Amino acid sequence: MKLATLRLDGRTAAVRVEDDHAVELDATDVGALLAEPGWRELAAGPGVARHALEAARYAPVVPRPGKILCVGLNYRTHILEMGRELPKYPTLFAKFPEALVGPYDDVVLPGVTEALDWEAELAVVIGATVRHADAERAGSAIAGYSVINDVTARDYQNRTLQWLQGKTFEATTPFGPVLATPDELPGNLSLELSCVVDGETVQRADTSDLVFGPAELVSYISAILTLRPGDVIATGTPGGVGHARKPPRYLSDGAKLGTRVDGIGELANTVRAEGAGSAW
Amino acid sequence: MKLATLRLDGRTAAVRVEDDHAVELDATDVGALLAEPGWRELAAGPGVARHALEAARYAPVVPRPGKILCVGLNYRTHILEMGRELPKYPTLFAKFPEALVGPYDDVVLPGVTEALDWEAELAVVIGATVRHADAERAGSAIAGYSVINDVTARDYQNRTLQWLQGKTFEATTPFGPVLATPDELPGNLSLELSCVVDGETVQRADTSDLVFGPAELVSYISAILTLRPGDVIATGTPGGVGHARKPPRYLSDGAKLGTRVDGIGELANTVRAEGAGSAW
Repeated sequence: MKLATLRLDGRTAAVRVEDDHAVELDATDVGALLAEPGWRELAAGPGVARHALEAARYAPVVPRPGKILCVGLNYRTHILEMGRELPKYPTLFAKFPEALVGPYDDVVLPGVTEALDWEAELAVVIGATVRHADAERAGSAIAGYSVINDVTARDYQNRTLQWLQGKTFEATTPFGPVLATPDELPGNLSLELSCVVDGETVQRADTSDLVFGPAELVSYISAILTLRPGDVIATGTPGGVGHARKPPRYLSDGAKLGTRVDGIGELANTVRAEGAGSAW
Repeated sequence: MKLATLRLDGRTAAVRVEDDHAVELDATDVGALLAEPGWRELAAGPGVARHALEAARYAPVVPRPGKILCVGLNYRTHILEMGRELPKYPTLFAKFPEALVGPYDDVVLPGVTEALDWEAELAVVIGATVRHADAERAGSAIAGYSVINDVTARDYQNRTLQWLQGKTFEATTPFGPVLATPDELPGNLSLELSCVVDGETVQRADTSDLVFGPAELVSYISAILTLRPGDVIATGTPGGVGHARKPPRYLSDGAKLGTRVDGIGELANTVRAEGAGSAW
């Protein structure tokens, strides 16, 4: 199944995406759907209405996750080609829900940054409450996979040792368009991930190249705190970010940002400079 | 005013704390209260019931903040005595609500850590929706102040460059007992902050020694994303943490942890080893 959150008149709804239409489900968004104990049956059911996909307006697939955990330094090939050792533990940092935008919304270029960069990533969405889980139970707690671009203000990321402030700018992080359940994808999760800026492919990798895979991440994080339905893990980005180029390349007003994971879907966003300035 | 969230039979409620009793307000907790546009009037009003404080059971003052932002390296005297320069920008990192416990609850010593440490802090609680705010507007968006202990698993904090995983262990972070509105406190916010472990005072500082004060932090963060009612900023801890001692000293099962800000209140928690182990 592929699930999405659509914007309807003055409300949102979780839907199951079919060929050319969406079956509206009895939940206000995919996060609320996943919080239902029998969500898989509910999601597969007849639903409450149908909508043509042609005119559909997509919200972030989970509009308000309780937690968004992001992983750094997690693509094996890229770490090794940089001459570094593979990490023993995942590097974890946070992003707040205010950062999210829908899969086709504008990405806001904050007035205060001069270094907005892309980071195409596979997202894991949690579908059960899970704590102290081994890898098998952790795997069962995964509702499915989505696409996220962990767009980052590099200047703010590097203002201090902690990355958070560069990672959570308002309305910078496209997420969606759908959650694909694991049965839609190959068991080894070998999927091509790519990022395209103004028509140029800038990142390309295979998601099976992750050092810490989805179930391992869920298990690791669940040793720290409880993961809940709708929580999101952004699994990290491969090589090819703009900041590492010589000279560096950043996202400017009007840039077209494409982020794709084969078998799941594609984000297509335009970068738009923020209207207002700021004292900082 | 001093506001708190009490645990009543099968529910919680926001209350105004009076001398020996609490006036129950029409809100499920202080976070829900602050989300009401006219919360100051509601909080000062006659309320819906009275409870004796003697037997009161306190929840975290805001049980489920939308965001918890923490500040590192923010006490001037401590930074200078370490021979470091004062920072140009605040160091920001996150904590998730799962970390919170009430002001008199047990603090859980996670089975996987061997280095649980204390960090007494002044907490700022947001009372309005605020974005791109100058210092004056930022100050007006502060609902009040509380006490938090940013209890930290140092081994996890230092596993990678990003601190998050050591900062957000489940049920480690006491928060409360009350939110004191700004009119309860001196204008310069000169308050003694202290931390006591098993009867020994291990941290003592004055909250007016912050490099980045509350309004400045709200302004800075509001340039990045929208702050909303109930959001929390933990403003950083002064010198005296256990990890910096020679030899280091950590919190063990049964330890008594006291965290106090004069004029606001005191957290009194017992550290209890987690029951279950974990594969990690």
